[in-house]
Amino acid sequence: MNHEAVTDLTTEECWEMLREQEFGRLAYRLVDEVHITPINYAVDGDTLLFRTAEGSKLLAVAMGSEVAFEIDRFREESARSVVVRGEARLLPEDEAHRAENVPLRSWVSTLKYNVVEIQPRYVSGRAFELSRPWLHLRPHD
Amino acid sequence: MNHEAVTDLTTEECWEMLREQEFGRLAYRLVDEVHITPINYAVDGDTLLFRTAEGSKLLAVAMGSEVAFEIDRFREESARSVVVRGEARLLPEDEAHRAENVPLRSWVSTLKYNVVEIQPRYVSGRAFELSRPWLHLRPHD
Repeated sequence: MNHEAVTDLTTEECWEMLREQEFGRLAYRLVDEVHITPINYAVDGDTLLFRTAEGSKLLAVAMGSEVAFEIDRFREESARSVVVRGEARLLPEDEAHRAENVPLRSWVSTLKYNVVEIQPRYVSGRAFELSRPWLHLRPHD
Repeated sequence: MNHEAVTDLTTEECWEMLREQEFGRLAYRLVDEVHITPINYAVDGDTLLFRTAEGSKLLAVAMGSEVAFEIDRFREESARSVVVRGEARLLPEDEAHRAENVPLRSWVSTLKYNVVEIQPRYVSGRAFELSRPWLHLRPHD
């Protein structure tokens, strides 16, 4: 194992990247199945918020399931990925207004009434030094 | 719900995008936990292959777990996401050579000896028409 190719991000670096982005992928269990779906999100304090319409995501959340969430970012020679794991819970009506105070912007104009909070239990991130020599095989413009 | 904003991809469109890309996120169960991790992959026939070092991913796979895998692509006004769900299995030594016949290229130069196959049970994809007016609020160069 080449330890220089992969390094851990600090917790602060993870949160910095979480605050910078607004799109990630949510993984969750539904009975015995594992599902994954793209979502828009926003950081609110030390939690993540997202909106969802009625459907399977919400159903899983309603069961108080543990979820995992991932964001990543690529440049030509480096990449970063941050993973959050924790409990998801549907916010009750008197807390849902929290979504209005953060930049929780859906990229898709469908109606999503419910606000879900992820309370992170584990936050981890890795920086990858990429080795993709084939990129340099492309002809120069 | 605005049905025009989200449309389903055909199975063929999903596979086309799977063949074009080489990076995605794998979600899997480990006992009661849900995990998600970035991986490089390649399409081999109607399966996906990826490599992994010894570790939690491999452990989950060794337990014959069902996994979910996601790729996505963004442009300014549209996005696509493809999700594959199915069984993962560690390829035995006499099948592992399959990874050498497909463009399974790791972007990170760490050693990964094991080849894992995902046999898709469900393949689905969605195209999103994005509505991000804030992008146009940026000053023009």
